[in-house]
Amino acid sequence: MRTIDWVDGAIELVDQTLLPHRLEMRRVTQLPDLINDIQRLAVRGAPALGVAGALGVALIAADAQRAAGDGVGDLDEVRRQATLLREARPTAVNLSWGVDRALTALNEGADAVLAEALTIRDEDIAACVSMGLIGAELTKELTGKDPVRVMTICNTGGLATVERGTALGVIQTLFEQGSLEEAFPLETRPLLQGARLTAWELQRMGAPFRLVADSAGPFLLSRGIADAVFIGADRIAANGDSANKIGSFSLALAARHAGVPFIVVAPESTIDMSTAGGADIEIEDRGSAEVTGFGGTRTAPEGTEAVNPAFDVTPHELITAIVTERRVILLQAGQTLRDTPLGELRG
Amino acid sequence: MRTIDWVDGAIELVDQTLLPHRLEMRRVTQLPDLINDIQRLAVRGAPALGVAGALGVALIAADAQRAAGDGVGDLDEVRRQATLLREARPTAVNLSWGVDRALTALNEGADAVLAEALTIRDEDIAACVSMGLIGAELTKELTGKDPVRVMTICNTGGLATVERGTALGVIQTLFEQGSLEEAFPLETRPLLQGARLTAWELQRMGAPFRLVADSAGPFLLSRGIADAVFIGADRIAANGDSANKIGSFSLALAARHAGVPFIVVAPESTIDMSTAGGADIEIEDRGSAEVTGFGGTRTAPEGTEAVNPAFDVTPHELITAIVTERRVILLQAGQTLRDTPLGELRG
Repeated sequence: MRTIDWVDGAIELVDQTLLPHRLEMRRVTQLPDLINDIQRLAVRGAPALGVAGALGVALIAADAQRAAGDGVGDLDEVRRQATLLREARPTAVNLSWGVDRALTALNEGADAVLAEALTIRDEDIAACVSMGLIGAELTKELTGKDPVRVMTICNTGGLATVERGTALGVIQTLFEQGSLEEAFPLETRPLLQGARLTAWELQRMGAPFRLVADSAGPFLLSRGIADAVFIGADRIAANGDSANKIGSFSLALAARHAGVPFIVVAPESTIDMSTAGGADIEIEDRGSAEVTGFGGTRTAPEGTEAVNPAFDVTPHELITAIVTERRVILLQAGQTLRDTPLGELRG
Repeated sequence: MRTIDWVDGAIELVDQTLLPHRLEMRRVTQLPDLINDIQRLAVRGAPALGVAGALGVALIAADAQRAAGDGVGDLDEVRRQATLLREARPTAVNLSWGVDRALTALNEGADAVLAEALTIRDEDIAACVSMGLIGAELTKELTGKDPVRVMTICNTGGLATVERGTALGVIQTLFEQGSLEEAFPLETRPLLQGARLTAWELQRMGAPFRLVADSAGPFLLSRGIADAVFIGADRIAANGDSANKIGSFSLALAARHAGVPFIVVAPESTIDMSTAGGADIEIEDRGSAEVTGFGGTRTAPEGTEAVNPAFDVTPHELITAIVTERRVILLQAGQTLRDTPLGELRG
């Protein structure tokens, strides 16, 4: 199953707002529908949003060409609509990136735009396969165990990408290799991506897992429940400090205390060499409502305010290794992002 | 306000199942009603349950004496009913303790039983006042700051005791002394005692606070949001290892990483010298349903299992100090429970 794809001239995507209760594909043929789906988080996850942006431009370009009957159509109008798409979630860097990359082919016509969008899709699939293989091998090497028990947070699976995921992609690969004893996803308050989406993905692939409340993760690590921890990343600074879902830092501290490898899995495009370190990463606060209630039900008293950082930064000293589709950077063994050469894609 | 008390010949208690939405006192005159209130968690918290047990025996003894018309009544029947009360929550050590202590006065008649129960109530109030004063002074000493910003987890306030609380009692004392800049209670999944009860208590006392998702606590400590962390305890082993609500361990690791004092506040009765260390404390798993749902709504897919430890153990090396109503044990300065003399109650 693909989270987002191009099927018979339209975008098809999993409506993630219905999960884990119902799996439903939506067929999107109009730009306003796509923008709406992005805004209500029917499609989410940095890599998936990149593909959504690119396929969205393919949709607009095809419309313009069809309307013109002859030639590529009104390209200024395509660019104007692409701007609307880019702004659907202004903070999602990958969305703009996907839109802009597809636009580079615009002068060559709608088919070329679609081809570029499908390339982005295929690159994401290949990168995730590669990260899975590299990560699985590294895990067995670092832990000396097979099968292994692993802990993770948030959703970094196929639902956040096109097909296989980053950190959860490694777990899937371990499972396919017969090397996964059990996975322990954290529920991931406040939006519960772990309980809603990761549990759903693990169940669907048939992998053995048990869900864990966020605050229990660190203690269970101290009691030896897992052999390794995997997380994704929203941004990796030049020194290896990694921004990811809130709760990642806490797991990193506990993994260090328990002597368990803590591994960041993310594509090369996540590495931002223009950001020197974690102190330079601004932490977005998403407001009180997500913390003071859940699913429309208020839990805290009326008028309660919250501090709600959407993500945290794990300092590089607490990260055993970063795995990308092209390399392993063993931060705790002294390697850096600058001096680790890129390799070939695997898989 | 008292969470539980004896008023005009009956027990009055706050129905905590209605909080934070409604504050309602229940008047309890019959043993089956009290047992039901304990079982449905209308009254909870170790110290409060001790008082509930003792006042329950006072209720039964008064009934027996009234029924007899003359003398103390049928004491075997009182003891039989006391056993039912003791078993209302078999794992709640304080409940049995309160029942048994009240029963020691049984031969002297119902008035003596009530007097013993009221003594337990008054001792709890005095102990919390004392812990508050000792803890507040220690906090200013250790941090060198006034006012201070503090983080806490679960509910250790007046709702868990009779009137003022343990860890939250220290925060209340700091507030009354004009020394509280801001409190940061963690929401405390899975049962949300922090969001529901601690936020309610802080709001009611007028203290400045912001709620925090459990997994954000450790990261916010690393960014300097608080000067000290306070927690309560369910049991303290002879070496100082402390069992408390799940999530405490994670905060202790983060407090150590941030260089912030981590302080356990609990009455002397919590210290169990017959348990050598944390490894000897059995961790109760409360089952999957609390983690796979939220306030009656299922969040994880049907069939999801969870690991759900109700509490965790913080090793003594991570605890700066233990504060009781009679002493301060500076664990990180090398003091032990055995060599620290008891002082006078303060307040």
